[in-house]
Amino acid sequence: MIRRLAVIGVGLIGGSLARALRAANAVEEVIGCGRAPANLARARELGVIDRFTQDPAAAAADADMVFIAVPLGAMRDIFATIAPRLAPEAVVTDGGSVKGSVVADAVSVVGRAPPWLVPGHPIAGTEHSGVEASFAELYRGRRVILTPLSETDNTALERVTQMWECCGAEVTTMSVAHHDEILAATSHLPHMLAFGLVDTLSRMHEHEDIFRYAAGGFRDFTRIASSNPVMWRDICLANREALSAMLARFSVEMTDLAESIRRADAERLLSIFERAKQARDQQVERARSA
Amino acid sequence: MIRRLAVIGVGLIGGSLARALRAANAVEEVIGCGRAPANLARARELGVIDRFTQDPAAAAADADMVFIAVPLGAMRDIFATIAPRLAPEAVVTDGGSVKGSVVADAVSVVGRAPPWLVPGHPIAGTEHSGVEASFAELYRGRRVILTPLSETDNTALERVTQMWECCGAEVTTMSVAHHDEILAATSHLPHMLAFGLVDTLSRMHEHEDIFRYAAGGFRDFTRIASSNPVMWRDICLANREALSAMLARFSVEMTDLAESIRRADAERLLSIFERAKQARDQQVERARSA
Repeated sequence: MIRRLAVIGVGLIGGSLARALRAANAVEEVIGCGRAPANLARARELGVIDRFTQDPAAAAADADMVFIAVPLGAMRDIFATIAPRLAPEAVVTDGGSVKGSVVADAVSVVGRAPPWLVPGHPIAGTEHSGVEASFAELYRGRRVILTPLSETDNTALERVTQMWECCGAEVTTMSVAHHDEILAATSHLPHMLAFGLVDTLSRMHEHEDIFRYAAGGFRDFTRIASSNPVMWRDICLANREALSAMLARFSVEMTDLAESIRRADAERLLSIFERAKQARDQQVERARSA
Repeated sequence: MIRRLAVIGVGLIGGSLARALRAANAVEEVIGCGRAPANLARARELGVIDRFTQDPAAAAADADMVFIAVPLGAMRDIFATIAPRLAPEAVVTDGGSVKGSVVADAVSVVGRAPPWLVPGHPIAGTEHSGVEASFAELYRGRRVILTPLSETDNTALERVTQMWECCGAEVTTMSVAHHDEILAATSHLPHMLAFGLVDTLSRMHEHEDIFRYAAGGFRDFTRIASSNPVMWRDICLANREALSAMLARFSVEMTDLAESIRRADAERLLSIFERAKQARDQQVERARSA
């Protein structure tokens, strides 16, 4: 049971955590913290939080669990503000999509990896953002990756694990570097392709006609291009290295594919498409039977 | 009213047309034609067709409407087989995703653009294929693009337009070249990206972990990579020129994006993502209010 949860950044991710813990009767009090008073008032109105403050230090001061769900570019300032004010029993975790930068931010503030920090990442979300979009079931059946360091307190890791399990999530741990590589491949690269595709088309002369004749497949494919631009700018900067490596890998693949089309290499095209279809069908099959 | 419809290629596209016309009481008899007798028997069992033959010429011989829904690579042979056997009042149309190659195939067989051919393309489909996946509502509210030539008979164009309208589709006409460019942008390029992405990841050392931690966004994004490989090989070959141009355009965009990430150009990244999000949100908004 969490006595007092501080949610710093009450949007889709932070709001859904608060809702899920409330629905599970796993939290007594939720303090919201953010920069926009109107959003916080709305969160209180929706029953997502009990009260709010705009000061992260005040929010964290008497909390036994602190969840940070702000864009990665804002993490360092949050750590700097809350670190001196944390209660001795407080555990801090976050929902950032890149873990290397979060750890680096904490280290740069505290001077070492703090035992109270359990870097985390719920693999869930929608293309919508804001507390209005939050819902208690967001994490049900989804994976949450925690990337504890050797310095991380074991009890802290256990408490964060329990918190996510209360939300119906399946918790796994891995190294920071492995997380950042996996996410570059499965999330960050696809987002770059969706943003890049929509931007390419929107800058074409015939863009009105192009979007008019786009079918359902296109809308599915580009859904993630409706994601929050600030969040994604920060993810790109925070996971620069792993994402650059994935972009380079993808570029080699696409050069090969384009070259196969140019020289009408039917066999090579078929083998690429068959390999991809097989991998995708298997993935869906596994997800279904999981 | 269509007296006798010949559907050459009874899969998702051909099967759904037959079902829709039957549901609208707009056809008296449907003859199916294909290479796999088991599939044709199944189509008859499902009530999609009344009877079948494996010979396209026999199927088309006494039909007043012929719909060809085979992979683009098989179009030329179909034209060659049916052209000498068509009834004087017969109209032929197709569901191919590229129109330039279909017209070229017909011209190469007939010696000129035949007045009875109305090249068409229903902008509808799912990642599934086969007659089992077909359903009467597939075309409801969807667009069908027809690309008549100056040689096309006006009555033929009218009859094909009416046929699609009976299925609940919205019919528009445009030039062959414009169609092929628009489709390269909205459909063919996205399919290449989805196939290319899944193939890239499947060939990585950590591919099991990668697919394990892929979330819903990834599954949406890569749905189209489950499409029929033979169909897509043919589309690539048939629309080589327009697709190559789009791939080159996209490559320029991605090089710029990768370069912006490499040099941590926060402003440029934000502007790309904002422009893409705005274009995508507008497109969804328009589709919703349409």
